[in-house]
Amino acid sequence: MHSGGDRARATASAGQTVAELGEFAMIAAITARLGTTPSVLLGPGDDAAVLACPDGRVVATTDVLVEDRHFRRSWSSAYDIGRKAAAQNLADVAAVGARPTALLVGLAVPGDLQVSWALELTDGLRDEAALVAAAVIGGDLTRSDAVIISVAALGDLAGAAPITRAGALPGDVVAVCGRLGWAEAGRAVLSRGFRSPRAVVAAHQRPEPPYGAGPEAAGLGAHALVDVSDGLVQDVGHVAAASGVLIDLDGGALTADQPVRDVGAALGTDPQAFVLTGGEDHALAACFPAGTALPPRWRVVGRVLAGEPAVTVDSSPYEGSGGWDHFR
Amino acid sequence: MHSGGDRARATASAGQTVAELGEFAMIAAITARLGTTPSVLLGPGDDAAVLACPDGRVVATTDVLVEDRHFRRSWSSAYDIGRKAAAQNLADVAAVGARPTALLVGLAVPGDLQVSWALELTDGLRDEAALVAAAVIGGDLTRSDAVIISVAALGDLAGAAPITRAGALPGDVVAVCGRLGWAEAGRAVLSRGFRSPRAVVAAHQRPEPPYGAGPEAAGLGAHALVDVSDGLVQDVGHVAAASGVLIDLDGGALTADQPVRDVGAALGTDPQAFVLTGGEDHALAACFPAGTALPPRWRVVGRVLAGEPAVTVDSSPYEGSGGWDHFR
Repeated sequence: MHSGGDRARATASAGQTVAELGEFAMIAAITARLGTTPSVLLGPGDDAAVLACPDGRVVATTDVLVEDRHFRRSWSSAYDIGRKAAAQNLADVAAVGARPTALLVGLAVPGDLQVSWALELTDGLRDEAALVAAAVIGGDLTRSDAVIISVAALGDLAGAAPITRAGALPGDVVAVCGRLGWAEAGRAVLSRGFRSPRAVVAAHQRPEPPYGAGPEAAGLGAHALVDVSDGLVQDVGHVAAASGVLIDLDGGALTADQPVRDVGAALGTDPQAFVLTGGEDHALAACFPAGTALPPRWRVVGRVLAGEPAVTVDSSPYEGSGGWDHFR
Repeated sequence: MHSGGDRARATASAGQTVAELGEFAMIAAITARLGTTPSVLLGPGDDAAVLACPDGRVVATTDVLVEDRHFRRSWSSAYDIGRKAAAQNLADVAAVGARPTALLVGLAVPGDLQVSWALELTDGLRDEAALVAAAVIGGDLTRSDAVIISVAALGDLAGAAPITRAGALPGDVVAVCGRLGWAEAGRAVLSRGFRSPRAVVAAHQRPEPPYGAGPEAAGLGAHALVDVSDGLVQDVGHVAAASGVLIDLDGGALTADQPVRDVGAALGTDPQAFVLTGGEDHALAACFPAGTALPPRWRVVGRVLAGEPAVTVDSSPYEGSGGWDHFR
């Protein structure tokens, strides 16, 4: 049940399954691949880990990824699935203005899963965490029919106040850092059996959240901050609701990037729909006081107005689906 | 995807399913039932939560529960499953000598699950956490074929060093606080279609870990500490391996309690096997320096010896299965 275990060295033979290797040897093999950081005071292998929280607070978030819902083993490598599982949790830490410091990973897998698949997943989790100097500090391994990857991410605010969804004020500008629509365009082509354009397929397989932009937004005085995981209209809708404001997006500033336009042309769909409703690129959207000098990676895409909480595009209600609901 | 959401009040009508209610209204309904504590600086509803960690460190652990593997909806109420999911994670925090402070809960459920089931699960998670003044500070809700409950628990060491599995020394006594074999005896009768003896069935449905005994063991100077989740022989085996010691258990001190003996008699099995290999009661096992004055709830059940890492019972290798492996 626990996050590490005995010192046994496990070497997986080619084609070996997790059931053949066994729970504790599998945990030992996973643990042996993980890295550490100076913040990890007690790492994997005990009932619980201990992480340094020098500012007296810890940021915490969790997301669960379910096979054939959040990822497909036929669409993505184990390594990329690991990168993505880590990324979407690390991005949630960045989305309150914090720096991620650690991951906990709960893994439920079929007994006939290849050991090599689980180890490549581990490498992906480790490497994505390493991008932000975070480490996997613990986890759990158990059995299930489908692959389930549950990740919790922890982070450090370094003395700053968390930037929530609730602080947007009329007069603020809305700005985005990171890609919009790429991952969803990639999902659209993969779901039709294509593997190109490569750029959007890669964006779906392995998002590249702008982690550093979270603390940057906090430093720039952002009033509100949100991770664009379910679609821009929907996610800034959460800001509108939590802040009690109207957010008007500027359609002209939200044109699709070339690879996304290519997908729209190939599939006969409006590429801007990917931009406005596509999730999983894990861009960050922030509301800044008007006049804030923004670094070039932040693009102003709208403004905050007084009014009933809602999101409009060019002052009109958005006619599209808005974004993702796992039960719709 | 996120841990709270809009302010919408959701009221579930009788028989309503999660899919009918929708992801965001379901999250709002769950969040509305949760409590808080002074440690919760930012609770559910944003991209991440913020928790106070006054001693500059946080304890962190995670366990995943999979339907029909860790629990059965036909054996346990949603409320009890919530209690148990929280308990096994809170116990892991206690098992390094810390006090639990918060839970994160990832929930993946079928679309046709009753809303009321998810809300009762939430109540169970909340109430078990409240036993130790902890709160659910965030989570995730998504869809899957089976019910998956992923919990991460956080905790506070209050200035003490964590008590790991690695510090046992020859000459230490091994002591246990909490029940042994009750939950496994309950599982045995439930798996045969019986619902009694009630005491052991209730112990399986809703374990009662001695949370306070974790920090107590730390205060008493324990050298090593472990949560008995997979079976005493197996879990003290982790201590033996991590500490490089031989642990000899005293069979005479590990007799089964009456309800467990009743199950052994009814099923024609050795009741001591439940005591030695049954998990899920979440007793704590600790290695204390010889001569430590132990409070009465700690029972001395063995001793630590120099030798090749192993567990013996009355100086002989244990012939039973040892304990639980999810892939065996």
